[in-house]
Amino acid sequence: MTSKRKIEIFSAGCIVCQETIEQVRNMACSSCEITVLDMHEPSVSKRAKKLGIQSLPAVVIDGRLADCCTNRGIDESVLRAAGVGSPLAHSKF
Amino acid sequence: MTSKRKIEIFSAGCIVCQETIEQVRNMACSSCEITVLDMHEPSVSKRAKKLGIQSLPAVVIDGRLADCCTNRGIDESVLRAAGVGSPLAHSKF
Repeated sequence: MTSKRKIEIFSAGCIVCQETIEQVRNMACSSCEITVLDMHEPSVSKRAKKLGIQSLPAVVIDGRLADCCTNRGIDESVLRAAGVGSPLAHSKF
Repeated sequence: MTSKRKIEIFSAGCIVCQETIEQVRNMACSSCEITVLDMHEPSVSKRAKKLGIQSLPAVVIDGRLADCCTNRGIDESVLRAAGVGSPLAHSKF
């Protein structure tokens, strides 16, 4: 039996991830055991893929990706709607 | 007047960002001018903050953060709902 809540923060090391690490540390209580994982480590990025992590930072609580971190990849349909992949009229020919 | 669609990909350099860069490059057309920006550069992270970037990778099209990349920070209320910050019963005392 574990007596701690295991909180893993997947980080790519930039300022955005660092701010989240601080934020979660400030929220944590005595039951929260926080580990910061570096996405530049192959074993970490492999595990991130398995967990469905598509953007960073990502928080995993007791082995489960937090709801606010799911389905966070780039949405190709949104990019297409913004024009990506459609030649601009005046550069067509 | 610009004849190109300016697409900026903010990257923290890990595999998740790299996959997105590939994905956007595959979508791009002759009107798309893609730049990859490294979040580890202070000028880039400063600009990311101004643009409202809260997770990586992030795609900015003609100076505007793509809709699929907005409001993507960690949601403190979701983490609290998952237990973060609440001592586990058996470790209260």
